[in-house]
Amino acid sequence: MSEHIVTSYDNDLNDLRRSISEMGGVAEKMMAEASQALVRRDTVLAQAVIAADKRLDVLQREIEERAVLLIARRQPLAIDLRETISAIRVSGDLERIGDLAKNIAKRVVAISDQAQPQKIVLGVQHMSDLVQEQLKDVLDAYASRDTKSAHDVWERDGAIDALYNSLFRELLTYMMEDPRNISFCTHLLFCAKNVERIGDHTTNIAETIHYLATGETLAIERPKNDASNYATVLPGVGA
Amino acid sequence: MSEHIVTSYDNDLNDLRRSISEMGGVAEKMMAEASQALVRRDTVLAQAVIAADKRLDVLQREIEERAVLLIARRQPLAIDLRETISAIRVSGDLERIGDLAKNIAKRVVAISDQAQPQKIVLGVQHMSDLVQEQLKDVLDAYASRDTKSAHDVWERDGAIDALYNSLFRELLTYMMEDPRNISFCTHLLFCAKNVERIGDHTTNIAETIHYLATGETLAIERPKNDASNYATVLPGVGA
Repeated sequence: MSEHIVTSYDNDLNDLRRSISEMGGVAEKMMAEASQALVRRDTVLAQAVIAADKRLDVLQREIEERAVLLIARRQPLAIDLRETISAIRVSGDLERIGDLAKNIAKRVVAISDQAQPQKIVLGVQHMSDLVQEQLKDVLDAYASRDTKSAHDVWERDGAIDALYNSLFRELLTYMMEDPRNISFCTHLLFCAKNVERIGDHTTNIAETIHYLATGETLAIERPKNDASNYATVLPGVGA
Repeated sequence: MSEHIVTSYDNDLNDLRRSISEMGGVAEKMMAEASQALVRRDTVLAQAVIAADKRLDVLQREIEERAVLLIARRQPLAIDLRETISAIRVSGDLERIGDLAKNIAKRVVAISDQAQPQKIVLGVQHMSDLVQEQLKDVLDAYASRDTKSAHDVWERDGAIDALYNSLFRELLTYMMEDPRNISFCTHLLFCAKNVERIGDHTTNIAETIHYLATGETLAIERPKNDASNYATVLPGVGA
């Protein structure tokens, strides 16, 4: 009887892990396709990204409900309790990543009829490539409980923020050069901001991996580098 | 002995409630002051908002740790378990609201030296007033476990999104009218977006109140009205 309980308990935890892994796969795909859709101006692909978000919402709700039931029924302690709490946290971050990718896809639809130099989009694509790598690495680290590799992801977030800052200034300059760029560049600004925030959520997941392994929260300050909040560009600089 | 355990358990839950209430107070104050700082171009007040965010981070961490300890030690069931899970969720939303208010304050510092017509700021202020009311109402509803009033907050989020959409178009038009407005209006766009996202977090809290009371998640779609993702403004419209 006791063995049976332990086994179905392990099954519960394995189910949670599997669902997180599925969510991670969906979120990665959504992000990659939102970025592709933006570069290629592919509204059909963008619509597919928008539709995919529903699955992520369903999975998150399931994970949360199952985690709460698991705590109530099995009363897990120590590492098992941390694993359950971590599943709730990571599923929350992955759901938000899906929302942000969906928001990029919606903007692809908005700007699809505006002819714009491809060059402006490439900065966003480059940033998106880096964040996709971060997301892949942190999901691998979560699956293999690899705290070292989670720390690497955590450290690298500063570089993404720096890239966002320079992109922010660049887009502002394009707007000042030609008012016809304003509507397009504003949407790109929000796309870039979304990518930066996806980076923040991968950092959250890295922090959760640390908590899962050690039971402690990372006390040190994040390698934040968000100078764009202070950035202004004077008209005429790029004109 | 058993009575003693029950008493200290109640104490634990009361402590959680008190901390959530303190977080709510700090978040409300930060939001009100960020908005004031923006309207008055008050960088001293903005710096105070930036400094206040640390307290919110500390409180959130404490609530999460205490909630996890409470689950581990007391193994709460049914309503008590939901109360504990809800505390984790609400503290997460309040911490994010603080981050967003802090981000508005940082932008106040960025645009402090730019002379701009006050009129443009008033739209953001109006939206911020509405969201502050939502935040106050949802915190009251959480304290009094008032699901009806939580539903009211939830319903009203659509109006905030509609307001954000019209503000988005208005700011785009100002940028096209005069390139000297671009840097300033871009920061205002992000301020407005932050206010809209604070509205989303108040909606999250309303959903948590529903879960706390019923044990079920709100299955119906949110009254989302985020057409600004699709909005574009043609140059020349406002010029």
